[in-house]
Formats: sequence, C-alpha cells, structure tokens
Amino acid sequence: MTGAVTAPAHAGTSRVRLAAVGLGRWARVMARAYAGSAAVELRTCYTRNPERRASFAADFGCGQDESLESLLARDDVDALVVTVPNDQHAPVIEAAAAAGKHVYTEKPVAVDLADVRRIRQAVGGSGIVFACGHSARRLSGLREMKRLITSGEAGSVSMVEAVFGNERGLELKEGDWRADPVASPGGPLTQLGIHQIDNLQYLLGPARRAVAMGQAPRPGIANQLAVGVLLEFDDSLGYLGCNWLSPGSFTLDLYGTAARLRYELDFTWWSKSAQTDAHTRLTRTVIAAGSADPDSRVLREDEVPLPPRDHLREEIEEFAHAIGGSAEVEVGVAEAVSNVAVLQAAARSLTRGHAVEVGDILAEIGD
Amino acid sequence: MTGAVTAPAHAGTSRVRLAAVGLGRWARVMARAYAGSAAVELRTCYTRNPERRASFAADFGCGQDESLESLLARDDVDALVVTVPNDQHAPVIEAAAAAGKHVYTEKPVAVDLADVRRIRQAVGGSGIVFACGHSARRLSGLREMKRLITSGEAGSVSMVEAVFGNERGLELKEGDWRADPVASPGGPLTQLGIHQIDNLQYLLGPARRAVAMGQAPRPGIANQLAVGVLLEFDDSLGYLGCNWLSPGSFTLDLYGTAARLRYELDFTWWSKSAQTDAHTRLTRTVIAAGSADPDSRVLREDEVPLPPRDHLREEIEEFAHAIGGSAEVEVGVAEAVSNVAVLQAAARSLTRGHAVEVGDILAEIGD
Repeated sequence: MTGAVTAPAHAGTSRVRLAAVGLGRWARVMARAYAGSAAVELRTCYTRNPERRASFAADFGCGQDESLESLLARDDVDALVVTVPNDQHAPVIEAAAAAGKHVYTEKPVAVDLADVRRIRQAVGGSGIVFACGHSARRLSGLREMKRLITSGEAGSVSMVEAVFGNERGLELKEGDWRADPVASPGGPLTQLGIHQIDNLQYLLGPARRAVAMGQAPRPGIANQLAVGVLLEFDDSLGYLGCNWLSPGSFTLDLYGTAARLRYELDFTWWSKSAQTDAHTRLTRTVIAAGSADPDSRVLREDEVPLPPRDHLREEIEEFAHAIGGSAEVEVGVAEAVSNVAVLQAAARSLTRGHAVEVGDILAEIGD
Repeated sequence: MTGAVTAPAHAGTSRVRLAAVGLGRWARVMARAYAGSAAVELRTCYTRNPERRASFAADFGCGQDESLESLLARDDVDALVVTVPNDQHAPVIEAAAAAGKHVYTEKPVAVDLADVRRIRQAVGGSGIVFACGHSARRLSGLREMKRLITSGEAGSVSMVEAVFGNERGLELKEGDWRADPVASPGGPLTQLGIHQIDNLQYLLGPARRAVAMGQAPRPGIANQLAVGVLLEFDDSLGYLGCNWLSPGSFTLDLYGTAARLRYELDFTWWSKSAQTDAHTRLTRTVIAAGSADPDSRVLREDEVPLPPRDHLREEIEEFAHAIGGSAEVEVGVAEAVSNVAVLQAAARSLTRGHAVEVGDILAEIGD
C-alpha cells in the first residue's frame, strides 16, 4: 500500500479534484458511481478523440483537455481516474507520477510484466497515492465471507472455488483483441479471472503456485475461451473457472470445517454499483444435527443477510480519503502486482503444461 | 460392456438369484434397495464373521454360507452382489468368474492397477455379466443433464465442474485406512471423487489428461483431505473438487453455449435410493432477453422437473435383465476400468506435480 503521508497534492478537507483519462464505457460507469460524492469532484477529462471528449464533458459537466500533458499541467487536478486500455496504463501512470498526480486505475494494473515493472517503479518513491480497481472484494457478500473466516464462524477453510463466465466469446471474431493470447492471455482468464484472483487472495492470502488447463474450441480463434486453474495457498486450495461460452455466472464456493458458503452474483448488475449487492446471494450450510451415523446428519442452509454497499463508489472515496491522509488504500501497487503475478503464472502454465510458481513471476518483475 | 448372450447361468424369465458377499453397511443398503423387486431375489449371504452373517440372514430372510467356496458351489445362486473392501474385489471376482457366477460389485472396481488387471482378465472371456455400481449417473438430474446435452438444448458444453465433499475427515484418526495414501489415493478423491469421475465421463466422454493439487492440512495424517483436479476431455474441460473437511456437498455445474445448468444433491439421502431424487435440484439459466449491450442482457433461471427414479434398484434390475438377456449393462468392465484410470491419473499427478495422461494408465493396465 502506498502511504498517503507524503502525498504531494491535496491535504485539506475539500473534495479531491479528479480528471478522467480514457473515456470509454468504463469511464462513464465510474463517473456515474462517484457523481454527487462529497469526497471527489470531476474537473476535466481527456481522450484523443475530440467528439468523444466533448460528449463526455457535456454529459458529466466537466472541462476537457486536448492533451495528457495539458491535463497533467493543471493545478486544479489532484488525481487521475485511468480507464485507458491495459497496454497504455504504463506510460499514462509514469506521466502522472512524474507530474505528482495521484492515480486510480482500472484492473488489471497491466498484463505485460515489463509494464508492471515500469508502473511499480514509477509509483514507488513518487509519493503519489495509487489505487487499482479491484472492487469485487468490496461487495457485501465478499466482506461477509471474509468476516465469517476471520471470526472463525466458517472454521478452517480447505478450498474456495471461484467462477466467472459470460457469453462474450460467442460473438468473438478473428482479429478481436480478446482473441489474441498476448493481449489477453487465456482470454477470459485475463478479462474475468483477474476479479476472482483478487477475491481469492483477499480471502485466502497470497497464492503460491498455479496450474491451468484451457480449451480453444473454435477454429480461427487462437485464444482459449474456457480455462480452469488450480491454485495453492498456504493452508488451502483454490479453483478458478473462467469462460466466454455460456450465460453469465459469478460464484464463489467456500468449504470450511464449520460451514460451507456459496455466493452468487448476477453480473449484469455489476456496473450499477449502488444496486449490485441487491442482486447477490450468500448462503451458509452447516450440520444442524450431528449423529454417529453419517447418513443421519442433517444439513441446514440459511441465507446470510447482505446489507447493500456501493463497491465502485467506496473504492473512489477511499482513494480520495487516502489522498487526504485519513485512510489507506486497500488495493495498492503491491496487491495489484500480486494479482497480475498469479494471472501470469496461470497463463504460463496454460502454455507450458506444468505448475508455475507465483514467486518466479514476482522475481521476474523485480523490485 | 459385457454381452449377456453367452451368460452361463439363468436364461429364463424367473427372478435372478443373488448372493450377498461382504455384509457391511453397504450390503444392507443394497438389500433394502432390491427388496421386493420382481427381477431378483436374495438367496444367501457370506462374510467371515458368523454373528454378522446370521444377523444379515435373519434381517433379510435369506440363507447363509460358511465359506465363499460353498456359496459359489450352490446351483441356486446366479449372481453375486460384492461389497467387500476394494482390495478384496480381485480374488472374489476371480473366484466368481471361475464358478460362472455373474458379478455386481461396488465402486470403484479396484484401486490398485494390478487388481484392475486381474479383474479384467477374470471377467473377459468368462461369459459372466459384470456390472460396477456407479449409480450416480442414474439420478434423475444426471439423466436430464445428459438429455439436455444430447438434444442440443444446452448448446456446446465447454466446462463441467463436479464437487463432492463431506465432513468425514474431521473424525479421521491416524491408522484409519482413509488416512492411507495407498489404500485411498488422494483421500476423498478415491472415496468420493470416483462417483463424479463417472458422472463427468458419462456427460463428456473419456477424459484424456488429469492434473491435480492436494492439501494435507492436519498433522499426523499423510493423506490429502482436499483435492482439486482439472480434466481434459475431447471438446471440453472438467473440474473435480473433493474434500473431507466441510458439511456435505454434491454439485455439478455445466456451462453450455445455450444454457448453464446447476445440479445439487443432499447426499444424506443417497442410500435411501427411492427418495434420493426428491432431495435434488436442477436449474437451467439462459439468456432470456438479448441485447447489443452486454449489461442489458437478462438472465432467466428456471427449475428443471426431475421425475423420481431409484438409482440403486434400477442398477440391480438392469444387471438382472442383462443376465436374462433382455438388457445391456451400462457400466461394465470397460467403464469401471476407465473411471479407475482417471482416478489413478489424478492421484499420480498429485504426487508428481504434473499432468498425467489417462492413456498411460490404461496402457499399464494392459489388455
């Protein structure tokens, strides 16, 4: 986590002044999520395309800049919300850090290990606050699963299975970046799996080793469209299943000695972050009546109440509070890099056919 | 599958005369399952322990034999229901085949590959009807999943995840055979996983390759108590999760291009085979409303009706009809051996840390 103490800009109690960089679909989702927040205000925006820029500025009532340089030179901007494509994260973050602007960036922090290295070097020592958008762990159900582990109510956890799939691969055409194993290693593994990798590490601690299998069932598409990964943690096992070939699914199954937990999310509600939790469900199964005869034991399933939160807004507000010095960023450089290391260990296992140590990937990224 | 045409005993329309060999808990479950069937009748029983033998004979109204030899010499016995421990399957089946008695045996057919080889040799050419108890595929939900694949209603299947766990490992003591990695490789992988291996091969065809990870989280227990396996099929991926460390679970999740299916079974109802299906649930999730915007697609989940069946009774009656020449055994030697080969590929991967070809295990068993 990046300390907020040496933050070069903004130490008062007024709202953190944001600039949106990259103005695609996700920039709009984020802008809606933090609209009206007492912690932040949107000052300006930038993307290369002038029409898209003007449209975003009009829709969200902010200024616009014609270049990243002019945006970074403004003294009424404290922080950037970066939603440019993954392979452009490194140069944008380097420029922001050099200009002393704090950075919130979409996940994954980068896919390419050289990019990850550049980002870590740029952020380290710059004094900026850096946050990576892994908001899934802020879902009410994930917070409750973590609480049930920490409190001991779930007992010792031996396995967690995390699945994230949707039907995007059914529309995939040759030449689409998602069909490119370099831009998106393992296809849905990179685009969807990264969410669950963060969830698994949030629940179980750092993963040590990954082994993966993939399937490329369509001619003309070089990338895998369905991938399974086994992950070894200190005291438990993880499974990650990702596919682009079936109606959407987002589930976590946790096996504890005292309880079994199942979490389900209707991901079509993902981008409406104030309503996401209302479309989720967490159930807990326990042995309600024990018996010497295993067949006479009775299971009881009950639903765990999930008070609604707002995963995207919370994340941006925590980022703002960290800039103000009153909070710490939960998913900073170290956590974001760790997630990419697990992703790349799984992706490398896909092509090499054997287990890959996460530590080897981290060593390649270097310090 | 073993043809019934050359069956050496029983070709009429009267009931097939059974002998129960091995009189533990499962022999009683089976005897209750086929009690009153028009296809079979229980004539005699055998186990070494005289009290247990007398008690079984009294409870189920059958005769008893003081040795396997005397039982096999009877001409009023057509077939054996074998529920002796796995490591005693081979000698019992060899003796039965030599005596021309048909054999139904509990799963797995054997764990040790040398035993598997002996059993295949004993059955092959003997002319007896041989059936292995993999009744999970006869559950109403499994039959319906298979139908939804075969009919095309589920679309192309990319992944199936199968999980089977219970809390038995929490009671495990040093010296228990279940704690022994040779008697029960991968612990719950052998004892529970074999059920789901048959289900996965039933749904997806033969598995080609397995890679596994295990966890031995308790001091003093050499065996793994939680195991994850990835399986490669011709056109799809499989995941198998097994644990002995959490309240019971038995689930299958199938990802098809047209539908996602989820099956859940309360395994505490397993041995009451006429009631098992009433404690299961199959749901189908489809995209009910399409849209160019992925976030605007609407998922619909509905429950698939599951007419009740009787997985154990059906299996024994099919065995009897195969002896009578009017049916074929669904899970014969070839299917049973194939399941053990997948099991042993996964178990070997656990100790060796890399993927293992199922074909290599089959080659070791030989022809």
